Amino acid sequence: MKIALIGFGTVGQGLVEILRDKAEQLADYRFEVVAVATQRRGTLYHPDGLDIPDLLKSMELGGLSYYPDGIGLNRDWDVTTIIRQCNADVIVECTHTNLTNAQPALDFCRVALASGKHVVLANKGPIALAYAELKESARRAGLLLRFEATVMAGTPSLRLAMNALEGCTITQARGILNGTTNYILTQMEGGMDYAAALDEAQRLGYAEADPTADVGGWDAASKALILAAALFEQKLTVEQMSVEGITNITAADVQAAAAAGERWRLIATVTPQGASVRPLRLPITHPLAGVSGATNAVTYTTDLLGDVTLVGAGAGRQQTGFGLLSDLLEIARVKFPY
Amino acid sequence: MKIALIGFGTVGQGLVEILRDKAEQLADYRFEVVAVATQRRGTLYHPDGLDIPDLLKSMELGGLSYYPDGIGLNRDWDVTTIIRQCNADVIVECTHTNLTNAQPALDFCRVALASGKHVVLANKGPIALAYAELKESARRAGLLLRFEATVMAGTPSLRLAMNALEGCTITQARGILNGTTNYILTQMEGGMDYAAALDEAQRLGYAEADPTADVGGWDAASKALILAAALFEQKLTVEQMSVEGITNITAADVQAAAAAGERWRLIATVTPQGASVRPLRLPITHPLAGVSGATNAVTYTTDLLGDVTLVGAGAGRQQTGFGLLSDLLEIARVKFPY
Repeated sequence: MKIALIGFGTVGQGLVEILRDKAEQLADYRFEVVAVATQRRGTLYHPDGLDIPDLLKSMELGGLSYYPDGIGLNRDWDVTTIIRQCNADVIVECTHTNLTNAQPALDFCRVALASGKHVVLANKGPIALAYAELKESARRAGLLLRFEATVMAGTPSLRLAMNALEGCTITQARGILNGTTNYILTQMEGGMDYAAALDEAQRLGYAEADPTADVGGWDAASKALILAAALFEQKLTVEQMSVEGITNITAADVQAAAAAGERWRLIATVTPQGASVRPLRLPITHPLAGVSGATNAVTYTTDLLGDVTLVGAGAGRQQTGFGLLSDLLEIARVKFPY
Repeated sequence: MKIALIGFGTVGQGLVEILRDKAEQLADYRFEVVAVATQRRGTLYHPDGLDIPDLLKSMELGGLSYYPDGIGLNRDWDVTTIIRQCNADVIVECTHTNLTNAQPALDFCRVALASGKHVVLANKGPIALAYAELKESARRAGLLLRFEATVMAGTPSLRLAMNALEGCTITQARGILNGTTNYILTQMEGGMDYAAALDEAQRLGYAEADPTADVGGWDAASKALILAAALFEQKLTVEQMSVEGITNITAADVQAAAAAGERWRLIATVTPQGASVRPLRLPITHPLAGVSGATNAVTYTTDLLGDVTLVGAGAGRQQTGFGLLSDLLEIARVKFPY
């Protein structure tokens, strides 16, 4: 299976490192990276495959221009040309998420599907904003569209819902879908105030310099949109959601909750009727109340099993890289049985 | 896909009720129950399929002899003859678990595989005691052997490990695999003593009249054997395991743990080196400490994702029935793509 990586930052490199480290275990799948595209550090395409150690080394040195020359190597094609003309079976979209209009990733996905390539995404934008369109394009072309890494990184939240729970009807999903805010709330339970906890989250790399997307609830909201689309075929926009972050939660609120045997958690709720994100006080015995630190979790309420809760990492280089790999493995099993 | 049910108690009837209630949703799979065998209430085989409402009604009335006569209906064949000679694609084994020698279920599975039939089990015995043999027989015959319902009922603990986490290496599984003991420990946290909590568990139907299998840790141990076999291809016996139940945990122990911010949980631990079951004091922040009541949970420790925890039902008529359905759906997808 030939792969083209659009975006080669932390997540894309995380995937490629796994392909390198697990080459033996994955040998049957014969994964080959034929193209890599970055925004400002060049692109590469070789129909016979690129060398993974050389790819990683070139990025360490500063960009794909450091990748060694060779016969048949194409440098600096533009991204759309690569997607359209390369011989990849699957386009892996891991450029930065844009939740305003999902571009340029959305157009990349459209071109990929129009040129007969399966699509795997870590980028939340195209799924949060245009899942119905992309799914329909994929369906008509007999192609697969997968996006495990967009919710809870590689922790198989979508694969659980879409595959392992097949036969059950899911009536609701509730989750802690943003690790940064959960880390901050957990630190506040330990006695820190909001500002100090945010500082620490930034120092540890959990929160961006501008933390609005996390603490304002927008990152969790984008994942709720994805769950709403994937589970309930809902075409929601973030404007149609009620979204409240954790910026108004004070140390006193956290202490009052603790005194009542409860904990604040930023909870995304998704039902067939809609979606919301807001801080909720949960009894300490609630499965989501027990989720501490930067961990994520989702509880699916089902007709046959009752509540099924999955708890795991929600971010990280190799965790998100595994989410991409997991999708590639599913596409390989379905479309390229060996 | 034609199904023969060996055993038609709570679990078998649970499956058949789901097939009835979800007939429309499952129509594409064209499931048909062609044979049903009970230990003391008769057997039925009809190559063109049995009527599900009539089957359930006959059991309500007292046994399969109340099932209406019809052309082509075979009554009271012996079980082995049914398994060998019926036209089922899949044998669903849901007779009572026997952890001493797994019989008669183990022989039923052998006959099924020898006569070209896939096998799905809710019965723990054959998997706990003879997984390697059965897996090898299935592999040689190109047949599938699935047993989701044996661990955490239908909560997809095995499907998570074997399918959704494919590509990760699991290095350890730790779980709360017995709901009765977890219910008792949770009640003791609420102030009950052991005897009262056990009484209540028996009154609610969680615990058997003879509670030894639960409170002695033996039920959890059998599930640990299954995880050891499925995850690590370990051929363990319960004699090789260290097994300790909860009978020595006193109200004072539970209070002492609570005072230290900890909780007692009966934990099965499975690694490539071995397996054990014993009560452990876990910090209240541990994901397994937060699992209350008759709920089950398992934490897989993996190389790429770290810890992934699944929490859900561990027993129940429709929950276990769904475990069987989930296996049937996988077999249908792999072997009977429509």
